[in-house]
Amino acid sequence: MMKKLSIALLLVMSGALGFAQTSQPAVTEDFKPSVLNQPGKEYPQVNSQGYARFRIEAPYAQSVTVSLGLGGRGGTKLVRMADSIWMGTTEGPMDEGFHYYHLTVDGGVFNDPGTLNFYGSTRWESGIEIPAHDQDFYALKNVPHGFVQQILFPSASTNTSRRAFVYTPPDYGKDNSKRYPVLYLQHGWGEDETAWSVQGHANLIMDNLIAEGKIKPFIIVMTYGMTNEIKFGSGLRNFDIKPFQTVLVDELIPYIDAHFNTLADQAHRAMAGLSMGGMETKMITLNRPEVFSHFALLSGGMYAPEDIKDQSKVKLIFLSCGSKEGPDRIKKAATALKDAGFNAVSYISENTAHEFLTWRRSLYQLAPLLFLE
Amino acid sequence: MMKKLSIALLLVMSGALGFAQTSQPAVTEDFKPSVLNQPGKEYPQVNSQGYARFRIEAPYAQSVTVSLGLGGRGGTKLVRMADSIWMGTTEGPMDEGFHYYHLTVDGGVFNDPGTLNFYGSTRWESGIEIPAHDQDFYALKNVPHGFVQQILFPSASTNTSRRAFVYTPPDYGKDNSKRYPVLYLQHGWGEDETAWSVQGHANLIMDNLIAEGKIKPFIIVMTYGMTNEIKFGSGLRNFDIKPFQTVLVDELIPYIDAHFNTLADQAHRAMAGLSMGGMETKMITLNRPEVFSHFALLSGGMYAPEDIKDQSKVKLIFLSCGSKEGPDRIKKAATALKDAGFNAVSYISENTAHEFLTWRRSLYQLAPLLFLE
Repeated sequence: MMKKLSIALLLVMSGALGFAQTSQPAVTEDFKPSVLNQPGKEYPQVNSQGYARFRIEAPYAQSVTVSLGLGGRGGTKLVRMADSIWMGTTEGPMDEGFHYYHLTVDGGVFNDPGTLNFYGSTRWESGIEIPAHDQDFYALKNVPHGFVQQILFPSASTNTSRRAFVYTPPDYGKDNSKRYPVLYLQHGWGEDETAWSVQGHANLIMDNLIAEGKIKPFIIVMTYGMTNEIKFGSGLRNFDIKPFQTVLVDELIPYIDAHFNTLADQAHRAMAGLSMGGMETKMITLNRPEVFSHFALLSGGMYAPEDIKDQSKVKLIFLSCGSKEGPDRIKKAATALKDAGFNAVSYISENTAHEFLTWRRSLYQLAPLLFLE
Repeated sequence: MMKKLSIALLLVMSGALGFAQTSQPAVTEDFKPSVLNQPGKEYPQVNSQGYARFRIEAPYAQSVTVSLGLGGRGGTKLVRMADSIWMGTTEGPMDEGFHYYHLTVDGGVFNDPGTLNFYGSTRWESGIEIPAHDQDFYALKNVPHGFVQQILFPSASTNTSRRAFVYTPPDYGKDNSKRYPVLYLQHGWGEDETAWSVQGHANLIMDNLIAEGKIKPFIIVMTYGMTNEIKFGSGLRNFDIKPFQTVLVDELIPYIDAHFNTLADQAHRAMAGLSMGGMETKMITLNRPEVFSHFALLSGGMYAPEDIKDQSKVKLIFLSCGSKEGPDRIKKAATALKDAGFNAVSYISENTAHEFLTWRRSLYQLAPLLFLE
């Protein structure tokens, strides 16, 4: 089963290019700095069509390319302008949402000094944001905001203190007799525990949903899901879930239940993950059915009805992916689960691939379905 | 007075080189990866003497230099090795502790892809850590850990939600009738609200002091102190404290007192800052004497007795700097304050300059002196 999972996941991951596959329109000259730029930095820029434009100072360089863009694996090759500044624009519009990228300067891999850095592909990468038409649901608004807390929890199995981030809703702590359900939410391969609250805006998605009265508030816990090093490709076949399962189930969950106002039972505990985090979610929820009642795989595979031994303990199975990721498998899996009597929901993010806008939207769709009883 | 402060601060800042000023010993070949490297990265490395060694892949580059090192403003010039990898070692040992740096590759400024990034000099910079002989006081230990919470607080004066980080001690929230004093702790020029908990390890310093029973637990609040853009040098002369004072005193403090278990009075509120944050601390504590009772300037100037109108309201004045920053001024100022009847303390960090080890040590010295009544 583990092998089957790995191959399915790799198929999903390899399908992601992240470009809008339309014919390429004439470029509109309304470029603005990306919202993810470092303070005061004018570049990179994005236009209203989703083109990205880069500007790199390296006057004595022989070549500067950007890993993002059309043109196959080469990305966008920048051109040295008269003032020795390197510039270039993607050959077509990018998908809406967040994209990782980096520069190659004279054969060396560096980040764009114009942007903030985001952990992905097991390195801190540059990031750019193509404003999405539906970005309102994760916008920073003047509503009550929950907190994102960095905690350091003791882990005997790895002999260290490990880091997690805990989102608590805006009303948390006002009434200490109030207890909350908890969603354990995992990042993807090469990312870490910062991904969901930074690239994913999980806290803002929650703040906005709560402000609009669309969900019952719950806690989200995000920790690092790679206890052993995983190489891209072959490594996932040999992935051993046990070390992370021990950290999550036997160390982190008891710590959270001891330090936060949680509803500390299976009925009020969910696990979700994107990509590799979905693979982990599937393995752990099946290995430890007494721990979680709500399962969600975001671009991270599927459950089959026969995977689940005790159907009565599963309250929700949520499966999602981007429309560019081969969504039929997800829809069919949800149908098969429903036919077998599960409360299963599928969600397809339109015009996105294996990228964070798919997962922001998936969380937005998932949250109102959690902990309804 | 504002002008005098600015000039004093600039003198302090310009004096910082960050190198151990000893004769340079033979290099010991016991280099190890810096603890601030990205996961799995072997370089940069540091040896037991404090030398730093860099290794950069950029096979087609014409020149690669590192801004860190001896040799004047040029830093450390790397040399292309036979395998086209650029390597180089600082000409002498660095000061113990944390240092910002960046690369210049063919005239362009980039970060070292081997290290984590840290916000300083108004950009995300590379960072390296030279292990300090006294690093135990900020080490991650198996003790109860407080949380570092990211909060988003409404700011009408700047028409946005602003970010702050709040350290709460390990026992916070266990007994909700327990109330804590609060230290408002400011970063330096070009840094932001992440500096004290990342570069400064403020949370670990507190966790360790609390575990050893050396301090009474208190809350620390860290927010962004640059509401208007400040250019290095000339800009500080024209620095207007009012916008940040409004954010801190009229917006953040009421929010903290409404959302955390604080002792919400002047007697239980301290303000401290490093470098430019010290300048801000001095201005705000003098402008608003009803708000804070404990003041601390870390490499950030001095108070004179005549600056303070109502001596009875001031419980502590703490002044510190590195031994390489001209410490006599600090000692004299503390003596003058003591002679005038103030509870004033000075602390000089041995063999450090205008850099984070000075400020980690300063916080470690300051914390046991706060809120003693």
